[in-house]
Amino acid sequence: TVGGIDAEGITAGVDTFFLIFAGALVFMMQAGFAMLCAGSVRQKNVKNIMLKNLLDACGGAIGFYTVGFGFAYGGDDTTDKTFIGNSYFALRDYTNYAGFFFQFAFAATAATIVAGTVAERCKMSAYLCYSLFLTGFVYPVVVRSVWSSNGFLSAFSADPFQGVGTVDFAGSGVVHMTGGLTALIAAIVLGPRKGRFYDEDGNPLETPASFPAHSVALQILGTFILWFGWYGFNPGSALKIANADSAATAALCAVTTTMAAAAGCVSAMFTDSIIDGMATGETTYDLTMAMNGCLAGLVAVTAGTSVVTPWAAIIIGVVGGWVYIGMSKLLIKLKIDDAVDAIPVHFANGFWGVLATGLFANGGLMATAGYNSEHEGWFYEWGSGSGDGSLLICQLACLAWIIGWVTTIMTPFFILLNMAGMFRVDPLEEEVGLDISHHRGSAYDLSGPSKDHVDELME
Amino acid sequence: TVGGIDAEGITAGVDTFFLIFAGALVFMMQAGFAMLCAGSVRQKNVKNIMLKNLLDACGGAIGFYTVGFGFAYGGDDTTDKTFIGNSYFALRDYTNYAGFFFQFAFAATAATIVAGTVAERCKMSAYLCYSLFLTGFVYPVVVRSVWSSNGFLSAFSADPFQGVGTVDFAGSGVVHMTGGLTALIAAIVLGPRKGRFYDEDGNPLETPASFPAHSVALQILGTFILWFGWYGFNPGSALKIANADSAATAALCAVTTTMAAAAGCVSAMFTDSIIDGMATGETTYDLTMAMNGCLAGLVAVTAGTSVVTPWAAIIIGVVGGWVYIGMSKLLIKLKIDDAVDAIPVHFANGFWGVLATGLFANGGLMATAGYNSEHEGWFYEWGSGSGDGSLLICQLACLAWIIGWVTTIMTPFFILLNMAGMFRVDPLEEEVGLDISHHRGSAYDLSGPSKDHVDELME
Amino acid sequence: TVGGIDAEGITAGVDTFFLIFAGALVFMMQAGFAMLCAGSVRQKNVKNIMLKNLLDACGGAIGFYTVGFGFAYGGDDTTDKTFIGNSYFALRDYTNYAGFFFQFAFAATAATIVAGTVAERCKMSAYLCYSLFLTGFVYPVVVRSVWSSNGFLSAFSADPFQGVGTVDFAGSGVVHMTGGLTALIAAIVLGPRKGRFYDEDGNPLETPASFPAHSVALQILGTFILWFGWYGFNPGSALKIANADSAATAALCAVTTTMAAAAGCVSAMFTDSIIDGMATGETTYDLTMAMNGCLAGLVAVTAGTSVVTPWAAIIIGVVGGWVYIGMSKLLIKLKIDDAVDAIPVHFANGFWGVLATGLFANGGLMATAGYNSEHEGWFYEWGSGSGDGSLLICQLACLAWIIGWVTTIMTPFFILLNMAGMFRVDPLEEEVGLDISHHRGSAYDLSGPSKDHVDELME
Repeated sequence: TVGGIDAEGITAGVDTFFLIFAGALVFMMQAGFAMLCAGSVRQKNVKNIMLKNLLDACGGAIGFYTVGFGFAYGGDDTTDKTFIGNSYFALRDYTNYAGFFFQFAFAATAATIVAGTVAERCKMSAYLCYSLFLTGFVYPVVVRSVWSSNGFLSAFSADPFQGVGTVDFAGSGVVHMTGGLTALIAAIVLGPRKGRFYDEDGNPLETPASFPAHSVALQILGTFILWFGWYGFNPGSALKIANADSAATAALCAVTTTMAAAAGCVSAMFTDSIIDGMATGETTYDLTMAMNGCLAGLVAVTAGTSVVTPWAAIIIGVVGGWVYIGMSKLLIKLKIDDAVDAIPVHFANGFWGVLATGLFANGGLMATAGYNSEHEGWFYEWGSGSGDGSLLICQLACLAWIIGWVTTIMTPFFILLNMAGMFRVDPLEEEVGLDISHHRGSAYDLSGPSKDHVDELME
Repeated sequence: TVGGIDAEGITAGVDTFFLIFAGALVFMMQAGFAMLCAGSVRQKNVKNIMLKNLLDACGGAIGFYTVGFGFAYGGDDTTDKTFIGNSYFALRDYTNYAGFFFQFAFAATAATIVAGTVAERCKMSAYLCYSLFLTGFVYPVVVRSVWSSNGFLSAFSADPFQGVGTVDFAGSGVVHMTGGLTALIAAIVLGPRKGRFYDEDGNPLETPASFPAHSVALQILGTFILWFGWYGFNPGSALKIANADSAATAALCAVTTTMAAAAGCVSAMFTDSIIDGMATGETTYDLTMAMNGCLAGLVAVTAGTSVVTPWAAIIIGVVGGWVYIGMSKLLIKLKIDDAVDAIPVHFANGFWGVLATGLFANGGLMATAGYNSEHEGWFYEWGSGSGDGSLLICQLACLAWIIGWVTTIMTPFFILLNMAGMFRVDPLEEEVGLDISHHRGSAYDLSGPSKDHVDELME
Repeated sequence: TVGGIDAEGITAGVDTFFLIFAGALVFMMQAGFAMLCAGSVRQKNVKNIMLKNLLDACGGAIGFYTVGFGFAYGGDDTTDKTFIGNSYFALRDYTNYAGFFFQFAFAATAATIVAGTVAERCKMSAYLCYSLFLTGFVYPVVVRSVWSSNGFLSAFSADPFQGVGTVDFAGSGVVHMTGGLTALIAAIVLGPRKGRFYDEDGNPLETPASFPAHSVALQILGTFILWFGWYGFNPGSALKIANADSAATAALCAVTTTMAAAAGCVSAMFTDSIIDGMATGETTYDLTMAMNGCLAGLVAVTAGTSVVTPWAAIIIGVVGGWVYIGMSKLLIKLKIDDAVDAIPVHFANGFWGVLATGLFANGGLMATAGYNSEHEGWFYEWGSGSGDGSLLICQLACLAWIIGWVTTIMTPFFILLNMAGMFRVDPLEEEVGLDISHHRGSAYDLSGPSKDHVDELME
């Protein structure tokens, strides 16, 4: 309190409010993922995928509260660079509840990314094991390394790597690549859905079967909810708002987020229309391309959202749309089956986002966002003739580290799960669908009243 | 304005903003209830239930504006304990519009809880009567008694009951139990849906028929929206945010809300899986259990959200899941038909939430949240050897009062409505469904284009 | 910073946060429109309408960023009244990113209003042309004239028209009438859907065919999301919140918005029930009427939301419901086919909203909201005996200007588009539906697993 005014109280209140608002929006992304994934799968697996989406939010909450948050941020009062935290378990001695709430919502996002990829064939118990393991251990280690003051790549440590540290503002790498790469590893170990790439006898199909999304309405609803939630995800990552710099940063995030989403949507859809049009001679517009292009742009801009200009966000989004299409086609070529294209969206564009930040990060914006502006994105450094590649090196190091860590830890995990027969459902259950075989019946019953009764009423 | 700084203006702005934000989220719960209820009923009654959800929000707005708010908070400038308010009708002389907006959203929530329970058989006119009566009179009396400065159980009166008053921070009792108990009374008077517990001749069925939810996708969407909205409901009940105490309270609410929801979901689903597995020998996972467990946890933590620790919230959620399952099974045993299980979620867990606060309320957190911390929850008092049961007595008094008041006023209301033939639809209309008989046709028309036209195009 | 307190920083932070919050809610209205429109059309055109909704948000973002915002607000440092802006293109030299974000969300809303009206028969390429043209040029000119400090009707210019300027606080005229009138012109030029008013041979039908909404569940979800988003649209239009006046204004907006929505819903639905009941002898309740009545009330109150009292908002909503019904019936009489009734909701009620503000605007509230309170709404002026019609003249001038401008510019645009054969799809494609003919297949595949497999599992 200065001169009768409780400035600390007001500031604390506003910043807390901002984190609650942003955390709630990020939490709402769970609904977005649930709708997007449910819409994308076949009718016979709708309940299963939605239950996974709900349970990973719940499991994530408990896992992140008990141990995950402590691993990520525990012991952050020291300035040492450490691999893993060792305090704050179950929030012991930690009082910034709004901060924890915001971080929990991110952890739940990382977990839920995988649900879609392994849909229609993954056992519930395997899913529960994996999502607790990810939110409780694998993801927190990544968070610590890049976001905590003790991380070896963190921009917020006392002595950051290369003098600047990795700029992954809202987590293209930390959240999306971690989730997306886990999905990729899981998809490889788990194998494709029956009938997708191989016939009954195991011979490769000439053309992969494409399984129809059961409800495009749910998909588009999910996409809009995710975009909406991203206004919590990216601006919210400013963590504070009650000062001029944080305010400017959060506002910029809202704009770059919008621009990248729009650009990714337009880029992916029209590119696909052109490619497809050249092959078939007819121009059609694919809604799935538009939606996933949108999400690709959103994922890609997440790392640099606070440090790139709006026009750079547009470029990042346009390229993001292409990255999505390319990766999606590559997966099909490699016969890796991703039921909702989460790998191209989250892994490939998470990668692109971290890299793009190393190219497009603007010094002035970096300073406002709290980074060391002496090491800008490589395009700016190149333009100014300095050629300082420090930031780009940090970004590449971050990519290598996340890929190395997640691959090293998740590959044996999934292989063991698979060897133990705990990963994949029985072939007949897969054919029938998981809703009937595991969840007590179909997700829909659209039958109306009996005709006799209707006739009787109408008389 | 102090020293050139408009601290009052900023504070008023932030607090107003907080209430608008929170009120909007609570309002969004209307969409959650609409989707949850619509998904839970049979396809032939979808329009009917959604119209009820929309109309009770609208009727609630008008009823609460004209009289309800005045009954709840009118005359709160005095320190007398009064049964009912007598000013602020149509907001006359009342200028805290943000406060009214937030309170309206709560009133609409109380009203909408009943819609689901009486779905598929209740007349529209009865529904309108009841929801106006509830939001305009019954609910405001409860609000006044527990939340206003004139309430005989209120913690905010000059001389609170037992020195502390009832702690029902965001309304497990005031909102959810009031709504849920009304639903219970209505369900008893109205009787079960045709074919649910009795055959055509009125003989009890050996096993109750279970009517399939027409769309699980809508149910889960509704659940996620409700959970999202709860971040307005609980943290918003701090009513202010621009000071350190309110900020700490709101942040705690976000965390306890999350933990209880997660715990309730996991508890209900796995408990049900185990019970069912022991009976059938097969382990299945029920999405409805997971969803309602989530909501049970949310309802249960609502009373104590600002005064219990996160681990206590987990315990409250776990028990909430069990309370849900137990009450749900009890209703079936008693042949009371609740189309969406709103009674176990809102009544039973509202009860548990008020009680649990009397056990788990922590003195330090109570002080921050503005309660008299001299009388803590009974577990703490017992632990410290004092055995002071004041708070627990307040909580039990609140339970007795709400049950007494709502039962006394709503039972004759519904019985009279029923005797006047205004409550239940005609049996044939019920058989055909309310959409065709009252709302001009079915909610869906999923028929596609004619095959001839498609063939013609494909040529 | 005064006396160690960064009051400017806090204020900037709170106001920025408010715009991000409000902008995100307004953006969410895109999901509302998508769900409402998709639910309203036949199953064969669901993908098409949702793709249009997604693309106009994306196109709107890019078009408004590159040129639209500059046309609307460019050069606002001068005090001249100018037709169009000439700076800030691609946000060059503009740093209020939060302000731009909020304005973008409005532009996207204006564009998306048209999508529903022309659904089921408009070419995608025509839609893209039109929506870019609207968000990039037509709408920005309207914005400049009414909202910028350089607008000839603006209340915020140095020397406002009639001393007060037009009061269109959140855009009943600027946004909704502009979008709705464009929809009307498009509908006239495009003609009705096949089989709606004329048979195969072009003879008028005795009774117009009514095409069933394919999913009422999506419609009601859309309605609730729109209502929710309106709490960003109207209160957010205060643009600031960190001072007592803005806070009071925003809070009032939340209340008037609620009241008008509720009143419009009740008014439209019961009026329709009475009219229909007198004709058929049976009382039925139409959900579409309730939903569109709600939206009608929301649109109508948007202009005056900050300057009318809650009871005036109720009157505006009630009349809004009637305006909706009247215009809807008139369109059918005139054989103008509006697939989702966007013209009665947005055009007719946008008109009514601007007019109503000229009648009901309250001086005290105008002062708080930053308007010149010397010229009140005509009912107040008349009541006080002054008879000053300045504000009403401004409102009428605004109506004439928007109608004149939009008609002048959009009529030839659509006629040319039509003459070039770029506007309407091929009749057979219309019959088959746009999803199959343009978007690679149907929006739904609700087929379950094969019966053989299910039987095999059950054995």
